[in-house]
Amino acid sequence: MDEFARIRHWTRGRQRPDWLRSRGVVVGIGDDAAVLEPDRDGTGAPRHLVWTVDTMVEDVHFNAATMDDPDVGWKALASNVSDIAAMGGEPRHALVSVSVPRSRDPERVRRLYDGLYACADRYGVAVVGGDTTSSPERLVVTVALGGAVEAGKAVTRGGARPGDLVFLTGPVGLSAAGLHWLTAAAAAAGGDATGPVPIAAAEAAGTAALVRAHRRPEPSVAAGRLLAASGACTSLNDVSDGLASEAREIAEASGAALVIRERLLPVRGDLAAYARAAAGGDDARAGELLLDWMLGGGEDYALLGTLAPAGLDRLGAAFRAAGLELHVIGAVEAGPPGLWLEPADGGRRRPVEARGYNHFGGISAASAAAWMKKDGERP
Amino acid sequence: MDEFARIRHWTRGRQRPDWLRSRGVVVGIGDDAAVLEPDRDGTGAPRHLVWTVDTMVEDVHFNAATMDDPDVGWKALASNVSDIAAMGGEPRHALVSVSVPRSRDPERVRRLYDGLYACADRYGVAVVGGDTTSSPERLVVTVALGGAVEAGKAVTRGGARPGDLVFLTGPVGLSAAGLHWLTAAAAAAGGDATGPVPIAAAEAAGTAALVRAHRRPEPSVAAGRLLAASGACTSLNDVSDGLASEAREIAEASGAALVIRERLLPVRGDLAAYARAAAGGDDARAGELLLDWMLGGGEDYALLGTLAPAGLDRLGAAFRAAGLELHVIGAVEAGPPGLWLEPADGGRRRPVEARGYNHFGGISAASAAAWMKKDGERP
Repeated sequence: MDEFARIRHWTRGRQRPDWLRSRGVVVGIGDDAAVLEPDRDGTGAPRHLVWTVDTMVEDVHFNAATMDDPDVGWKALASNVSDIAAMGGEPRHALVSVSVPRSRDPERVRRLYDGLYACADRYGVAVVGGDTTSSPERLVVTVALGGAVEAGKAVTRGGARPGDLVFLTGPVGLSAAGLHWLTAAAAAAGGDATGPVPIAAAEAAGTAALVRAHRRPEPSVAAGRLLAASGACTSLNDVSDGLASEAREIAEASGAALVIRERLLPVRGDLAAYARAAAGGDDARAGELLLDWMLGGGEDYALLGTLAPAGLDRLGAAFRAAGLELHVIGAVEAGPPGLWLEPADGGRRRPVEARGYNHFGGISAASAAAWMKKDGERP
Repeated sequence: MDEFARIRHWTRGRQRPDWLRSRGVVVGIGDDAAVLEPDRDGTGAPRHLVWTVDTMVEDVHFNAATMDDPDVGWKALASNVSDIAAMGGEPRHALVSVSVPRSRDPERVRRLYDGLYACADRYGVAVVGGDTTSSPERLVVTVALGGAVEAGKAVTRGGARPGDLVFLTGPVGLSAAGLHWLTAAAAAAGGDATGPVPIAAAEAAGTAALVRAHRRPEPSVAAGRLLAASGACTSLNDVSDGLASEAREIAEASGAALVIRERLLPVRGDLAAYARAAAGGDDARAGELLLDWMLGGGEDYALLGTLAPAGLDRLGAAFRAAGLELHVIGAVEAGPPGLWLEPADGGRRRPVEARGYNHFGGISAASAAAWMKKDGERP
């Protein structure tokens, strides 16, 4: 198969021409560049464009023990969808660039595209072009994603004000715990994994939702749209690099202090249960693991933000009506930019450092290594 | 330096806020995603978006013997600018994703950004975001570029009709000849090059323009804009993968035969002189090399297209007035899609196969290997 035949094999027939047209696609895959019609709001005015790009590198962001090919495709797009959600935007158009080792079976790349298109279908994203090159060693996938937001409604990191509430739109720590379980399961199964441990094993262990959170994360587009429309949301980030890291970004961009109360953090039952299992029944150790995953883990794609207290009731009602979660977890205070944690045991608040509270303390070496590699950052 | 500090070091202060604002940038580098205002045409209607992505992989698309760090940055953006030009669009906004080996000195990445921003300044491109990750072995640079074109004016590959003329907006083969010289010069200098042979050596050899065409190619935006505005241009491609390959793409997308006359191909004096030098004075061999570079070389970023004959005089005058070249090199005929060459010696026309006429025939092994690796394709 030549290069063009491969691309056709991976992409042709995936999305119907009339649906693509309805998403503003004038010229899609197959020319020098895609041509897109700007989206309009209810008054006919053009919406603003929201643009982002994310790269996933084999053996840096994923490996055979943690992700299957379709997972890689799903997550390559989902990480971008999450960035659009974190601006309050709606995802619309994707470009996909894959650099593929020459020895890689094209069918494996087709399965990667299976996962990518599944995510595209889920979030209404039209795939409009891309690039394919060879790579000497590792698979590299870059997705650039364009979206739309009503003019003036995009929510940045920089608007948090003292007196605002800090909120989360969903649980955090699931992806990190899922990665912890996948890494441990792969180590237990021996070193020659050609794919992640089957999901049935995770179901038997009660960790299936954690594993899915790592391999098939679900960006919070609907929550982001509600937040942007509300006018009450003063800052917003997705929790791609961990709650602590994202909270510090908001604090620094806004010039304020964020205070998170440990006892307000939403803790999922399966997450707590796996922390206990991973700690071998040591409750103090389980609590450390849990807090480490929740503050330092990342890749959960819940949204973290701040809002004016006066907006809470209305926003809470809108979230409940939409079947979405909204958890107040702290408050914004005047003071030097930084992040503080009020411990659940009633002790004094303490500062949370750069990339998360006690980031690698007590985690298994394998898991810590996996996390250390997860160093993607957006400028 | 942590990751954010590196990104600041590479990008901060490069483009002035008021200039970015004039390019429609509402939120630029530093948040989850960029927010951009759609561009409008003279009547206030929103222009269409033109969007493309290209990836360059170390030791696939470039190496220490052929490109310096700033060249890599320039070309990573320029290849995208060329794709926008080939749709008749104007480049506007770029996202930059770099995957950097951990051992790489951040100053080298800064120099890569020097070249990228030089190209951005040249073509009026606002850099609005990106991603930075580590890479186990090779540097990978992906640029996604968005542009604008008046609604309905984008020129695709698919509109060539029998009777149309085939044209080029500039010389071809320069980049391939430059790569040939660079590869030969590096081999002559021994195998441990930490950068390409100094340009002074190319100047002494009379190949400086060829080397610059390879390392600092100049996309044909002004020509593309004239062609889109004319309404006479029926198809358009940039010559990134070689004249023969691009002509075949137009033929296939348009369902017609393209016939190129060898004696109409624009041959630059320095190109012909280097072909003679590389052939060691063998005129027949020099002719083969020349034709090989011109048909198969690629990365020249001239535009190849077709136009209705009635439009030639007006378009030719517009090109002359703008100081641009326009060379008619053949014609479109009815018949099965394909590419034909009428030899300069008056012999019978012959079909030109997939990736160019006699693509690797007689080229040095090193140069052929470099070309074989140059397999980037856009879906």
